[in-house]
Parts: sequence; C-alpha cells; structure tokens
Amino acid sequence: MNLMSVKRGQEEKMKQENENLVVTGFTANGIHAGIKEDGRKDLSLIFSDRPANAAGVFTTNAFKAAPVIIDIERLKTGEAQAILANSGNANAATGAEGLRDARAMAKSAAIALEISDKQVLVASTGIIGKRLPIGKINKRIPSLARGLNPSGFRDAQEGIMTTDQFPKIEYRKRVISGKEVSICGIAKGAGMIEPGMATMLSFVMTDAEVDSETLKRCLVRGVDESFNAISVDGCMSTNDTVIILANGRAGNKSLTGRSRERSAFQEILSEILRELALSIVRDGEGATKVIGIRVEEARTREEAKKVAFSIARSNLVKTAFFGQDPNWGRIISAIGASGVALSVGDVSLYFDQIPLFNQGRGVKGNESKLSEVMKKEYIQVIVKLGTGKGFFSAYASDLTYDYVRINAHYHT
Amino acid sequence: MNLMSVKRGQEEKMKQENENLVVTGFTANGIHAGIKEDGRKDLSLIFSDRPANAAGVFTTNAFKAAPVIIDIERLKTGEAQAILANSGNANAATGAEGLRDARAMAKSAAIALEISDKQVLVASTGIIGKRLPIGKINKRIPSLARGLNPSGFRDAQEGIMTTDQFPKIEYRKRVISGKEVSICGIAKGAGMIEPGMATMLSFVMTDAEVDSETLKRCLVRGVDESFNAISVDGCMSTNDTVIILANGRAGNKSLTGRSRERSAFQEILSEILRELALSIVRDGEGATKVIGIRVEEARTREEAKKVAFSIARSNLVKTAFFGQDPNWGRIISAIGASGVALSVGDVSLYFDQIPLFNQGRGVKGNESKLSEVMKKEYIQVIVKLGTGKGFFSAYASDLTYDYVRINAHYHT
Repeated sequence: MNLMSVKRGQEEKMKQENENLVVTGFTANGIHAGIKEDGRKDLSLIFSDRPANAAGVFTTNAFKAAPVIIDIERLKTGEAQAILANSGNANAATGAEGLRDARAMAKSAAIALEISDKQVLVASTGIIGKRLPIGKINKRIPSLARGLNPSGFRDAQEGIMTTDQFPKIEYRKRVISGKEVSICGIAKGAGMIEPGMATMLSFVMTDAEVDSETLKRCLVRGVDESFNAISVDGCMSTNDTVIILANGRAGNKSLTGRSRERSAFQEILSEILRELALSIVRDGEGATKVIGIRVEEARTREEAKKVAFSIARSNLVKTAFFGQDPNWGRIISAIGASGVALSVGDVSLYFDQIPLFNQGRGVKGNESKLSEVMKKEYIQVIVKLGTGKGFFSAYASDLTYDYVRINAHYHT
Repeated sequence: MNLMSVKRGQEEKMKQENENLVVTGFTANGIHAGIKEDGRKDLSLIFSDRPANAAGVFTTNAFKAAPVIIDIERLKTGEAQAILANSGNANAATGAEGLRDARAMAKSAAIALEISDKQVLVASTGIIGKRLPIGKINKRIPSLARGLNPSGFRDAQEGIMTTDQFPKIEYRKRVISGKEVSICGIAKGAGMIEPGMATMLSFVMTDAEVDSETLKRCLVRGVDESFNAISVDGCMSTNDTVIILANGRAGNKSLTGRSRERSAFQEILSEILRELALSIVRDGEGATKVIGIRVEEARTREEAKKVAFSIARSNLVKTAFFGQDPNWGRIISAIGASGVALSVGDVSLYFDQIPLFNQGRGVKGNESKLSEVMKKEYIQVIVKLGTGKGFFSAYASDLTYDYVRINAHYHT
C-alpha cells in the first residue's frame, strides 16, 4: 500500500465520519470568498451559541502575524464565542494596516453574529507581506454566517487548507461525570506555502464544561506532546495557532483541579491533538514516510526531547529514511550532537524492535529484517540513553526530491 | 560561468601555487594505503623537524571518535611534532578497539619518525562503525614517512579527501617582527560521507614562533569566524578536527600577549581558515550557491550569530536560493524564529545591497535587479536588526536535488 492510498483511505474515513461530527452548541461554515485564486474555500467561521471558555497556544516566532497578536490580547479574558479564519493570505509582515484589517474582519463577523467583537478570534494562513483583500472578506461574511450549521466543521476545515493533500479532522465522544462530552478538532498542515510559511492552524471545539485556566493547562500539555513534537522542516511560522473553545453545553460538572474526570478529558483532547499532528507530518511536503522517534532512559523529559529533536531535524537522517537506508551512524551522530551529556557505550538503538546499535557498536546480522522495515511508511525508532527514566516521542517526515521541488520552484 | 568552472579554475590556481607551498621545517606526504577501495590516496603524514607548539579545536559531539579523544589528551602538553591522518574510515563508534587502533597507528608513525608517540596526533574520516584496517596502515607508514618532503602538502591534502570535488589548500606569507612567516592550511570538506558523517578536518602549519597558549587563542578566534560560521546541513560529526602546529623556524620574536605582531599573525591565520571554510561550503554536497549572511545592528555578537544561523540552517531559505527566488518571507520568518527578541519594524534586509524588506514590509520595485542577483553563485544577504552594534557573518550552501540524491542514495 503506498502513501497516496493511505491518504485516500483516510479521506474516505473522514467523509463517513463527517456526518456525525456534532458538538452541542457549535455551528461552522466555510466558503470561497475570493482570496485564493483557484476557487477553493478560503474563509471559515466557527461559532458557539454562547460564550465559551477559551485558550490558545501560539507561535513563539518574534514576528507574530496580526491575527496572532490580536488573539493573544483577546484571550486574556479566557472567553470567546467565534473563530474567523482565512487561507490564501497570512496577514503577516503587514504592519499597522494588517492589525487594522484583522480587527475589521473580526468586527464584520461580530456584527453578523450579533456579538461583541472582543468575542471573535481570528486566524490567517497563506502568502505573507501582502494586505488582506479586506473588502472581499467583509462582503462575504454575512453569507458565511448565514450558512453556519451543526455539520459545518468539514467545510470550515476546507476553508483553512493551503497545500494540504487531505483534510484533517478528528472527533471523540466520551462520558465524563455522567454526561456525554464531544470534542472535534480541525487542522491545516505545515506544508510550506506562499511564500514559504510552514503555518499550522488548529481549532478544537468541545461542549465540555472546563474552566478557562484548566482548559489552558490541558491544551498546553496536549500541544506539547503533539504539535510541539513534530518536525517537518524545523521552520516555525509567524502564524502558528492552536485555539480551544469549551462551551459547557454537555452539562458536566466543571472539570477543575486534579480529578479522574479531568484526566479523561485530557486523554481524549491529547489523542485528538496527536492524531491531527501526525496527519500533518504524514502530509508534510514531499513526505513518503513518518518516522516516530521515541527516546527513553534519559535523565529528564527535557533531555529526551532534545535528543529526539536532534534526530528529527537532521537532514542526513531524513534523507537516509527517504533512501530506505538503515543508517544508524547518522542517528548516533545526531544523538551525540544534541548537546546532552552522554556516553556512547550506554546508548542503544532500535528500528521497530530490531537492534541496530548497542555497547558502542553496530549490531550485525539483522540486515534482511531491516531492509523490510525500511520499506514501511511508518517506522518506529527507539533510542535508549541508559541515563535515567525520562522519555519523549517526536515525529518527523523524510526529506525528499519533492520537498526540494515544491520549495525551490515556488516563486514569489 | 557555472560552478564547475569556478571549481576547476580554483583547482588550476591550486596547482600553480603548490610549488611554492613551503613552511620552514615542515615536510608532508600522502599515499594510497588500501583503506579506500578505489586506489585514491588515503593516508597522510605531516612532520615538523622539531617539536612544535600545538593547539586544536574539536567537535563538540558527545560521541567523539577515537582519534579525537587521543588528540585532546595529547594536546594538553601544548606540543606535537606530527599529524597522521587517514580517510576512508572514521574510526568512530569503534569502542576500546578503536582507541587501541588509533594509538597503534600513532606508534607506528613515531617509530618511523624516531620521535615519542606522544608527539604524534591522529585524525580519521570516512565510514563509521568499522574497525580500521590497522595492518595495512602500519605496513605502509614507513614508506609514507620516507616520502616526506617540503612540497608534500598537496599530497597530504589529497590523502584526507573523501567526497570533496576539489582540493582545499591555502597559503600566506607575511613579514612579522622582521622575519618572513609562512602559514599553510589544508582541509577536507563537510561532504556527507559513508555512512553519513559531515566530517571536517583541517591542519594548519606555520613556522611562526607562537607560545601554545596564544596559539590556542588565535586558533579559537579564527575557527569561530570560519569553520564555526558555516552551515552545509547543520550536522556535526564525531570527527571534526582543526589542528595548528607552530614550529618557530621563522625565528621571529615569540608572538605572545597583545601586540601588533600577534594581530598580524591572527589576520593571516583567520584569512586562511575563512578561505578554507568557504571552499567547504562551495563544495557542499549538491551545492550550486554560497549564501553569505551578514547580520548587523544586533545587541551582541552572540545575538547576531543566533540570527545568522537561524537563516543559514533553514531548509526553506536554502531551497529558495536553489530555486533563485528572492523570498524575503522565509528569511524574515527565520529571523523571527531565532529566539532573539526583535521588533519586525526595526529589521531591514538586503541582497547584494538591494533592499527587500524594511519598516515591517516588503520593498517593491526591485524585482528585475533581484532576479539578476539570484542567478549569481555568491549572494550576500545583509540583515540589519536595528537593536545595537553586534555583527556576525555566516555562510551557507543551498539545498538541492543533488543533496537529496547523494544522501538518500548512499547505502550502508
């Protein structure tokens, strides 16, 4: 089974599941507003029928795009009721005009939805350094709002796609303190887009009742193990945004403090975020493989993470996987270059349970088994550092001709 | 003029200059000992007729290859008389046997040269995880030593080459405190080699009289602006080594403390190291361009360096240059992702003096001039951060189909 068939299979699954993707109190929609030139959807709206507790995690890039700046400010209240997002234009590096445009589109949505504009969050992805076609956007917002419907998450997801090859939607239901709680997450990928942002957007909607502080903690933890655990090309965009809205419509007892109920919520939230993040890696530009990198026996989780990312970001490692070469030398070198103090004699390395390296040397005799593993589309790399109990998992795509083609041959 | 003709031109220049590459008291040689299978030279020896003051800078990779471990130990005396180096095998990830082999080859050279084996430094580059063919090496060392001659630097350089496409030798003469001082530096490149090390080796020989502490300081400073300022693919090998030997044969007054003479020496040493480093970038695997990245107006030199490397290591930036696209968005995003606190409105960006970005926005109207610049083989990127007086220059190669081909299609 090749990767495209996996992608198509996944798309089919998405279509089937779509009909049931309902989160009480939420409606959504996505339309073509004329920002993208090719007629695809480019403007999305997500709305909760009452103000929701809200939290966000944003890019740490020093040059934050206008919508990111606005959302960070607005989320200080811990509350929001709508997310308006566009693709085709990132509204980044657009100065004071960009901030005005972002506020203006939020205002238009607020008017159409009859809510305060402070309740509207915004997100943008696409070309940077160009002003938003704010006239087109404002003009289409009323009809976007009129089309809001409980089954609209799929349309909203389409409206934020750029170079994504398949949609990214995840949905879970679970009974928490006697009530059925739903979560739906949508995302768009880290495909490099005009003119080269690796923007990742993700919005999560839940009808759980969770106070905004707990919501923020749960989101940060989930993001750390998902979107912050993936590496397509190590580039961080000006627009990366993850927002969660929790409107409490499920009627559960509020998930506050440390409780079994909160753990249950964290579990499904983390699962959704991890699946979305993995689908972004799988859809990485030119990617033919996903490499799962689990680092164990580190002194601390932080050290495990450092080592995992040193491997995940190595172009030499990424090209070796594309070439289907079980090249342990490149991985050992990347581990050594991580900045973590290690002794090579303590380190062992496995691909899908097959040992490649231990006691300071390569393991011989597994060549034929390894050549089978290297053909797979998901390969699990396990590194044991022999220094403690810390662990971390990261996920990387391989580095291919298509990555170079896509990114060299796009012209601004 | 395409890059290959530049490379060939450089090779011609090397050949002409070679005849005069003499450093008083030094002899060198390089031969084929049978480590490489293709008959090319793979064993080199450099010898000073008296013990030289010596200093080294080595990889910070936690998994240092056997020869690196031995050199760090031996250089504690600040003295050495010979360097024995092989290509075709890195003697890395070879455990206790690797250390024994490295000591054994040094011992053979010491016997042939009739000096203490503590005076012999060793270096290796090539495949990792395989034992050195120590029998072959030991057998050929006597004839290697017999062939030592004052014009042997070119042969020694050939003996350390791996995937290098052209030789890397630099030579300077200068009168310092009334005496003519010579320096010759040789290097091999960061081409990714079996099975994927980006090993860089460089040896510098001078007849200047410099005490070993001053020598170390001069070397560290020179390396910081040269080998530590280049990025081919951000990978750091287990074997990276720079060694300098200064035998004092020029008879100058010792270059100690802070003096004009020391500055003069630093200048030619830095120049040699910078030229060698640039030739490594030019010869980066699959490279079609060298991108010089000068970051100015940073708060500190450290901040300038961080920003320069954030650009130099960005795959998105490197592919854009390969595609000849003046994609300022990718550079601005890489600057923002550097971890340095910056305001986008203060930043300006130039390619070969042509402004692309300032006051938070792209500069329009230079498209045709820029499309000419993008065709060049050396492009100077200047970034002004507007926050202070710190500056740093880094050098990167572009990321090409050939990089992927070379690194994906080598099989261990």
